[in-house]
Amino acid sequence: MKMVMVPASEVQLTEVKYDLGEIQAPRLTGLSLKLFATLINAPLVGSFIIAYLRQQNKMDQMLRNTVIPEPPMFKPEFPPPQEQEAGVVHLEEDGKPQDRVEAASRCLPHHHPATTWNSEFRYWKIRDYAYAYRSGLTTPSMVAEHVISAVEECKPRTPLLISFNPEEVRKQAAASTQRFEEGNPLSILDGIFMAVKDDIDCYPHQSKGGTTWLHDIRPVTKDGVAVSRLRSCGVIFVGKANMHELGMGDTGMNPHHGTPRNPHDPQRYTGGSSSGSAAIVASGICPAALGSDAGGSIRIPASICGVVGLKTTYGRTDTTGTLCGPGTVEVIGPIASSVDDVMLIYAAMLGSSPADKISLRPPIPCLPDLSSNVGFPMRLGKYTQWFDDVSSPDISSICGQVLTSLSEMHGCEIVEITIPELQQMRLAQVVSYGCELLCSLVPQFQKRFQKLALDSRINLAVCQSFTASDYVAAQRLRRRLMYYHMEIFKKVDIIVTPSTGMTAPTIHPSALDCGESDLEVTGNLMKFAVTANVLGFPAISVPVGYDKQGLPIGLQLMGRPWCEATILRLAAAIEQQWNEPKRKPVIYFDVTKGK
Amino acid sequence: MKMVMVPASEVQLTEVKYDLGEIQAPRLTGLSLKLFATLINAPLVGSFIIAYLRQQNKMDQMLRNTVIPEPPMFKPEFPPPQEQEAGVVHLEEDGKPQDRVEAASRCLPHHHPATTWNSEFRYWKIRDYAYAYRSGLTTPSMVAEHVISAVEECKPRTPLLISFNPEEVRKQAAASTQRFEEGNPLSILDGIFMAVKDDIDCYPHQSKGGTTWLHDIRPVTKDGVAVSRLRSCGVIFVGKANMHELGMGDTGMNPHHGTPRNPHDPQRYTGGSSSGSAAIVASGICPAALGSDAGGSIRIPASICGVVGLKTTYGRTDTTGTLCGPGTVEVIGPIASSVDDVMLIYAAMLGSSPADKISLRPPIPCLPDLSSNVGFPMRLGKYTQWFDDVSSPDISSICGQVLTSLSEMHGCEIVEITIPELQQMRLAQVVSYGCELLCSLVPQFQKRFQKLALDSRINLAVCQSFTASDYVAAQRLRRRLMYYHMEIFKKVDIIVTPSTGMTAPTIHPSALDCGESDLEVTGNLMKFAVTANVLGFPAISVPVGYDKQGLPIGLQLMGRPWCEATILRLAAAIEQQWNEPKRKPVIYFDVTKGK
Repeated sequence: MKMVMVPASEVQLTEVKYDLGEIQAPRLTGLSLKLFATLINAPLVGSFIIAYLRQQNKMDQMLRNTVIPEPPMFKPEFPPPQEQEAGVVHLEEDGKPQDRVEAASRCLPHHHPATTWNSEFRYWKIRDYAYAYRSGLTTPSMVAEHVISAVEECKPRTPLLISFNPEEVRKQAAASTQRFEEGNPLSILDGIFMAVKDDIDCYPHQSKGGTTWLHDIRPVTKDGVAVSRLRSCGVIFVGKANMHELGMGDTGMNPHHGTPRNPHDPQRYTGGSSSGSAAIVASGICPAALGSDAGGSIRIPASICGVVGLKTTYGRTDTTGTLCGPGTVEVIGPIASSVDDVMLIYAAMLGSSPADKISLRPPIPCLPDLSSNVGFPMRLGKYTQWFDDVSSPDISSICGQVLTSLSEMHGCEIVEITIPELQQMRLAQVVSYGCELLCSLVPQFQKRFQKLALDSRINLAVCQSFTASDYVAAQRLRRRLMYYHMEIFKKVDIIVTPSTGMTAPTIHPSALDCGESDLEVTGNLMKFAVTANVLGFPAISVPVGYDKQGLPIGLQLMGRPWCEATILRLAAAIEQQWNEPKRKPVIYFDVTKGK
Repeated sequence: MKMVMVPASEVQLTEVKYDLGEIQAPRLTGLSLKLFATLINAPLVGSFIIAYLRQQNKMDQMLRNTVIPEPPMFKPEFPPPQEQEAGVVHLEEDGKPQDRVEAASRCLPHHHPATTWNSEFRYWKIRDYAYAYRSGLTTPSMVAEHVISAVEECKPRTPLLISFNPEEVRKQAAASTQRFEEGNPLSILDGIFMAVKDDIDCYPHQSKGGTTWLHDIRPVTKDGVAVSRLRSCGVIFVGKANMHELGMGDTGMNPHHGTPRNPHDPQRYTGGSSSGSAAIVASGICPAALGSDAGGSIRIPASICGVVGLKTTYGRTDTTGTLCGPGTVEVIGPIASSVDDVMLIYAAMLGSSPADKISLRPPIPCLPDLSSNVGFPMRLGKYTQWFDDVSSPDISSICGQVLTSLSEMHGCEIVEITIPELQQMRLAQVVSYGCELLCSLVPQFQKRFQKLALDSRINLAVCQSFTASDYVAAQRLRRRLMYYHMEIFKKVDIIVTPSTGMTAPTIHPSALDCGESDLEVTGNLMKFAVTANVLGFPAISVPVGYDKQGLPIGLQLMGRPWCEATILRLAAAIEQQWNEPKRKPVIYFDVTKGK
């Protein structure tokens, strides 16, 4: 059936019908998964299966049988910001990372540092470690031993790191300890332990992107830009965090390196693809980690594991020295146990790449000055049908309660909105991310195809079926979708949704060996995530409670391009309001005691 | 064979070897063309033929078997201009077109207007018409009758226009005549006759893009933006100029509407795809025309027909209301008999689209003030091996002589340069243009496929074989190529080449009915053109002489992004130096006499 879309500017936003259907694909594991992965890559049968899947999911309908009047938008193209965010502190993008961290720490609200390990049964924040180091309660070298044994102890149950070298950790910790002894710590981040997702270069580790072979064709010889900025602030890198292979899934399942378990329930996934990053923070081993987000890969595991994850505006971070470099939807960003810590890490790592400085011309980055209450009240956009389209009523009710208290306590106005073409949004993300990733792999992956996980082989088979014309059509959809959201952002400051459409999914035992493909779960996890990727908006997931099974629930705040400060301010308010001590880290060690 | 490219920044530009091989494909016409067009679109055989062609032309080698380290550049991304061009006049992009034309006319050198028709055996310029109208020598309505009969008389031999309505021309001319009678002409362009390429909307004509059916699925209800700007200056539009179907070829052959003939030799092509636009100017019927250029389509026919054609910086013109709207390589621009007239038309039509204003943020457009000699001497980059790689020694010797006199008369320095990866440049243009065009056609062209010319069916079959990953790979090549050229532009102000690798190709009689496919000719015509498209640079073709058969030769000047003024200044100097009266318009009528 041929369809001609009317120009986006003529669509009546008030008359939009909610249209995000389910993804149509069989749930596969074990033998059925093996068979399907083989068949879909077989010469003739494969194209029939793909054609069927494409048809069932209306891909051909949306990409090939529809006239899309807009020209393509290959990367997010933002109109210049209308007005400056209120109550913010500017960060010198080209200055020293330490100076930015210093500026960020002045934005934070007052904090009573912990003096005993988890005295208040809460996560230790960066400022707790900083205080402990400076007051002699502990040293980076002491903490290093705890971190090393925690990582090693939990490895059989939950393989948090793909690449881990205790000596390398000890060496960094010793250098940091010495700096403290000499009274010259590099910054508040000195001695802070962080894990780095396996798709971000962190020398001397290799970057496998969750595969078993990627480092053979792409050897790492130096830190990625963001890692090197953090390192200059004194951060200690514990190793490369586990991830869903090539970022092509959002459960965190990894048959090669083992599947990390959700700290809140070891029978459940962490979410992904930044699985190890979220889990290592949620378990309390590291206060922060780096992740990457091309379709919710920071926000989903952060939400599912009950921690905070920030996806910044497209182009705000420099992805040089990562596997996400060539993408048009992906950014890297921090996962931490609190908004404070996310702000500190973000301040250290930010700064656009030279190419993005030319093509995107980003405005000066800034952080909210949390000592002031400027910036409130805010207008929060809620698309109720979408907001409530979740697999558990606990999610909508708990997220809804947060909105109610935000309007009561901060005078926030809840504005009902509608958003057209959510199915097209999902498709635009799949086509853009999949095909850009595929391009990086094509010259060298054919003969390594059998080394890929079965679900990756299925996903790549679908991506290989996209033509150049499909890709351009997806970019035309992006321009329409940008138009709609720019209209919506005239009426609201932030779009609020749950972070995911479900809490942590169960790991079927059959999935542990050969993996699984369950696009219903994928659809539920990614339900609210992809807009920020397709359109490049900043978005943050903050924990707001637990479902009846005790699994964390996250709320997503998505803001105007470049307005990281606005979403961080609201996130901080939510965090403060939602009783922090309720949160349950998994405590492996007492950092104030020697091993 | 797998290949890993070193990063562009590590390529030694001085050690580059010239690598632009020939395009490998059979020359086809008549029965062989019919057979090939059928076979290449047949289910199984087709894919074998395409695979063979792709392999012969190293397409798979360059797109699929090569690791390209750069991230994709989907549209030209320009660093901000280093310094302002010297001796220029700024044009108000958002002001009235008439004011820009007025500003442009003040940039022009003194001109003795003609007082009798072709007294000096030269083209009448816009200022000749303007003077004649104002001094009562003739009126737009008088000229209209000449134009109408000239178009009608030459139609059987050379179908210049696809859509032509004498009454519509008379109506516009009458309105213009009345304005002159009332003493209120709209601008110096009032009463100037122009043709508009069939891919640019000019109401009430339909835009067929050289096909027989495109208007059925894309009805035209108003002028394109550039046409409407020109109309507000009083321009009279004679109709829609013939073109190579869908701009997918550069000879100008069109089996549906007839193939326009080169005014310098009716047995030869005009060049394309803006065939009718160049021919109607070269024949002397209109002083100017609009064309579009995605792979040399303005510059090639201008060069082959002995007139001037300007391709502006990507994003400088607004392609809203044209078939080129969604492209990342295409612009629209003027073809005229002189640089003066190109400047006047350009001034009226220019102005970036709202989307390009956001994503490209163009600097203020300007024109060279030709009353001053500021801006000289210039550094002219010449890649001698490329410059001399032409099918006739006349081309290199005549173009070379121009360079010699430029250094003698204007102190220009000829800087020897080398440019890597010219084959990749050609491929990046084919993939980008072909696939973006295909995306516009896909929803509706399947059932109209049999209505396409045979060469278009072959070209589209090849384009349909490109995957999304190929498309992304081509965009990665674009970023490399941009890097090289930005390095080169640190050392030179303008890159000079012949406009084409051959003079007007012969029309084989067999090609007139069913068309022809001759990629050797294509390669020769496009040899120097595609860089300006792939990288978005401004470029102009100026006539500099004739080969031994009396066929025009053009010189191409390609400048830094946004530096239209620099190439226009040099073009004007070349035009002045190269004895203008030598040029031979085809005179159809005497505009100063009534019909």
